[in-house]
Amino acid sequence: MAVKVELKEGEHIDELERKNYKIIQDKSRFCFGMDAVLLSGFAEVKEGEKVLDLGTGTGVIPLLLEAKTKGRHFTGLEIQEKSVGMAQRSVLLNNLENKIDIVNGDIKKASDIFGGAAFDVVTCNPPYMTEHHGLTNLDEPKAIARHEIKCTLEDVIRETAALLKPGGRFYMIHRPRRLVEIIRLMNAYKIEPKRLRMVHPFVNKNANMMLVEGHRGGGAMMKVEPPLIVYKSQGVYTEEVLKIYGKI
Amino acid sequence: MAVKVELKEGEHIDELERKNYKIIQDKSRFCFGMDAVLLSGFAEVKEGEKVLDLGTGTGVIPLLLEAKTKGRHFTGLEIQEKSVGMAQRSVLLNNLENKIDIVNGDIKKASDIFGGAAFDVVTCNPPYMTEHHGLTNLDEPKAIARHEIKCTLEDVIRETAALLKPGGRFYMIHRPRRLVEIIRLMNAYKIEPKRLRMVHPFVNKNANMMLVEGHRGGGAMMKVEPPLIVYKSQGVYTEEVLKIYGKI
Repeated sequence: MAVKVELKEGEHIDELERKNYKIIQDKSRFCFGMDAVLLSGFAEVKEGEKVLDLGTGTGVIPLLLEAKTKGRHFTGLEIQEKSVGMAQRSVLLNNLENKIDIVNGDIKKASDIFGGAAFDVVTCNPPYMTEHHGLTNLDEPKAIARHEIKCTLEDVIRETAALLKPGGRFYMIHRPRRLVEIIRLMNAYKIEPKRLRMVHPFVNKNANMMLVEGHRGGGAMMKVEPPLIVYKSQGVYTEEVLKIYGKI
Repeated sequence: MAVKVELKEGEHIDELERKNYKIIQDKSRFCFGMDAVLLSGFAEVKEGEKVLDLGTGTGVIPLLLEAKTKGRHFTGLEIQEKSVGMAQRSVLLNNLENKIDIVNGDIKKASDIFGGAAFDVVTCNPPYMTEHHGLTNLDEPKAIARHEIKCTLEDVIRETAALLKPGGRFYMIHRPRRLVEIIRLMNAYKIEPKRLRMVHPFVNKNANMMLVEGHRGGGAMMKVEPPLIVYKSQGVYTEEVLKIYGKI
């Protein structure tokens, strides 16, 4: 079943540590980080569910979720054409063309593209930073992945609310510094925050990432899960992080 | 300087582990819990500041904050007359009548009682539970301390916003399950949540308390501090908790 997939200049193939899946990346553009892996560990996808990943980049989250869950179908939406091409070839490389679609399009128009109430689950690892003055090239892939150049947090949450079926679930990783805004926007678009997990580099350090789950139209009741600690000592991952990475 | 203070039936004197301060309590009414101690550890009071504790009960938070900080003056507001009497006698017992006032009054009218923009810091360890059906006696002190019988969370936050000077700081301990409502109300009354600390009984358990700091009229920027872990093993407090209690 090996499929011949062409690599373009600068691209290479990385292992995903799940079902021997591989992913095509290009270091000069953007490589997925720990945040994508943690989000794929936090998101729950049940048997038969349809999943959409907003701003999928090279498709790491659909690939990991397909590997880890019994979801029926996964779609990744990405605005950058080159990333779409890489993600589509990664799908072929793993023989997943029946399970994963990669669509080239704009998050701001996602509910026009896919229609309303079309998904059981929406995931997103959005750009964290609001500001982009000082950036020299707003078309640079790393800038687009990190800064709100092509879409804002409100775009993500507004479109998610439209895309989710009633009761559908939203999973996002973001920065704790924007917690208040995240909760305010989720409230405004009627996605009730239900589950929160703070990610701390060490047990005695401030959180530098947060994982949040919201339910479209859910009732108020937040669960704050145990802290997710990344390192047990300098450079040594905790067992939980190694498990999420699929290394143990 | 010993002051003769009379104990009423059922009352006893407990040690506060800070400056040899003592507090009068009555087990049949309500004794302060870990939440009050953690709040007194989380709240920051700078030299010369004026502090108000809303719903002070027997006055544990003003007593602990007076012991731990260089605040200029501390006021405790309490609606239950018997608790006010006990708190006032504890103030005398510790010779603190020049530093701490205990006032009998209703949180809902706190800004009428004290006037607007009167405090640098407001603290509150409010009732956590919204529901009180099924309670047989709504005048029972433990019920009043634990359930929103005499005041709601919104009353606390609305009055706090009026009572704080611009830039003044609010410190509260509450349940994580109500995080969304807490942030929504703080937003509505223009107290910006700036600092959050989750309290977990064990490092691998869900948070069961949360500490929050808000600034009246502050800019958006949340800091999520390291998790506060209560026990390192069954029945054995962590060092941090022992320090907050003043035991090491």
